[in-house]
Amino acid sequence: MSERVFINEVGLRDGLQNQPRHVPLDGKTRIFAALQQAGIAQFEATSFVSPKAVPQLADAADLMAAIGTADVELSALVPNLRGYERARDAGVRKVAVVLATTETMNRRNINMSVAQALEACVSVISAAKADGIGVRAYVATAFACPFEGQVNEDVVYDLSARMLDAGADEIALADTIGAGHPEQAKRLFAGAVSRFGAQRLAAHLHDTRGMGLVLAWIALEAGIRRFDASIGGLGGCPFAPGATGNLATEDLVFALNEGGYSTGIDMGKLVEAVGVVEEILETRQGGKIIPWWRCRRDTATQAASRP
Amino acid sequence: MSERVFINEVGLRDGLQNQPRHVPLDGKTRIFAALQQAGIAQFEATSFVSPKAVPQLADAADLMAAIGTADVELSALVPNLRGYERARDAGVRKVAVVLATTETMNRRNINMSVAQALEACVSVISAAKADGIGVRAYVATAFACPFEGQVNEDVVYDLSARMLDAGADEIALADTIGAGHPEQAKRLFAGAVSRFGAQRLAAHLHDTRGMGLVLAWIALEAGIRRFDASIGGLGGCPFAPGATGNLATEDLVFALNEGGYSTGIDMGKLVEAVGVVEEILETRQGGKIIPWWRCRRDTATQAASRP
Repeated sequence: MSERVFINEVGLRDGLQNQPRHVPLDGKTRIFAALQQAGIAQFEATSFVSPKAVPQLADAADLMAAIGTADVELSALVPNLRGYERARDAGVRKVAVVLATTETMNRRNINMSVAQALEACVSVISAAKADGIGVRAYVATAFACPFEGQVNEDVVYDLSARMLDAGADEIALADTIGAGHPEQAKRLFAGAVSRFGAQRLAAHLHDTRGMGLVLAWIALEAGIRRFDASIGGLGGCPFAPGATGNLATEDLVFALNEGGYSTGIDMGKLVEAVGVVEEILETRQGGKIIPWWRCRRDTATQAASRP
Repeated sequence: MSERVFINEVGLRDGLQNQPRHVPLDGKTRIFAALQQAGIAQFEATSFVSPKAVPQLADAADLMAAIGTADVELSALVPNLRGYERARDAGVRKVAVVLATTETMNRRNINMSVAQALEACVSVISAAKADGIGVRAYVATAFACPFEGQVNEDVVYDLSARMLDAGADEIALADTIGAGHPEQAKRLFAGAVSRFGAQRLAAHLHDTRGMGLVLAWIALEAGIRRFDASIGGLGGCPFAPGATGNLATEDLVFALNEGGYSTGIDMGKLVEAVGVVEEILETRQGGKIIPWWRCRRDTATQAASRP
């Protein structure tokens, strides 16, 4: 039997939060349904962030009410204790906290030091554990910070350990700006696996520079079996045509299915879900696999005469 | 000192041969010059194929006359002895032969059996060796055949061994239709390296399904240090917008430079070469790295607030 790899779909949160076009609740539930239909069983569905900061996700509680009874694992990002309480009251059974690795990033993002940001995460983790709610903890900018450059792995291990000690169930090592490179990924993932065990780790990769799948493969080699991905590669810079954001779910699932892993996800239906996203956003979306998938017969014939 | 990886630019041959738009000699020499400027030191510049079969490359001898004195290694594909003689007479110092792995592929492509096609390759190899001309031998469809599906590795090793025995200097394992998958690549590259040594091997990958860079990384891990790539990812199915062909030189070079390998190639100038290709073909081209490269400041700022 082939080995199982778990995909956590983050398009509805990490993908949409950056979309200039407003997606109404109905659009979100349609995307969710198409993904569930394809076999996606784990979603980071939304964020209980301030509606003023991210208007796109202002309907977090409504979305949870709409999809909360589905037979899948749903989580929601919470930026602080207030967000946590909103999430809990909306029936969320698993929350995600975010901790960036550098002083500059935390200062610019949430006006806290790393120590303060860690404390804020720990307070959410403690509250959630007391309420019997699961917690995933992102170590954001685990590879590089846009302000301070490459991040030392020891910082990542230290922050991970502190959040696990506080009670987090899982650490998601996030290449927030898609700046990780292969050698670094090899060290970081192997080091994290040896310290914390692959079971408690996930990789959250962005494909900004086209390296998402290479880094995913390296994580897989290191033993990691949990990956975030975003349908259609949603989450790219909206001002950069063609620039991808999160690693596209369809690219990752295709590579995993081809690589002999079991994802439980149907590629054909996943590509249909990309179509739903395109219809709702009224723009062309999709990972690298999409153009080929959509014209694969032509390609096979065309290419037949070339080395 | 970082380890050297050698890039053989095949865009002028494998990339252009599939382009519906005719590129005049002047366009080819401009692309060549831009690539040489970026530090590319090895080119498969053209093919001495029948001008009727591939009108795009009918100027093979003229191109060799135009760029033949450049201080780089130039090779040309030759489909048969007649093509070989034309190449030799045009001053080519290294030729490439192509042998596909399956009966159906050879039959449909050149109306020969595998045995006949091998014999044809061996006759070119022998002639070239007698003339003191270098020979690279492609094992095409080394991963999968569009007609017969996945290819057994032993067939690849056998055909490789026969061409090496005949005098070929190098075997290029070609994923002609971009259908290789990670597990297969791991076996195939490792098996080839153990049999023939990494020095005599190159990987020729297509990014049709977005897996080119993952397969390149696997080849690298197996010890292979010679890679083909095509500027802008030229070589895709012209009827599939966005479908890439060969692994884009800029994607591979970026990953290698980031991964701590030495390519001798300047990314900024390589991206300028993509611009030259776009100008000449009057269409948008480029690997996955291009959108990010062109708007990377925006991206860093945009992404700064996300995990």
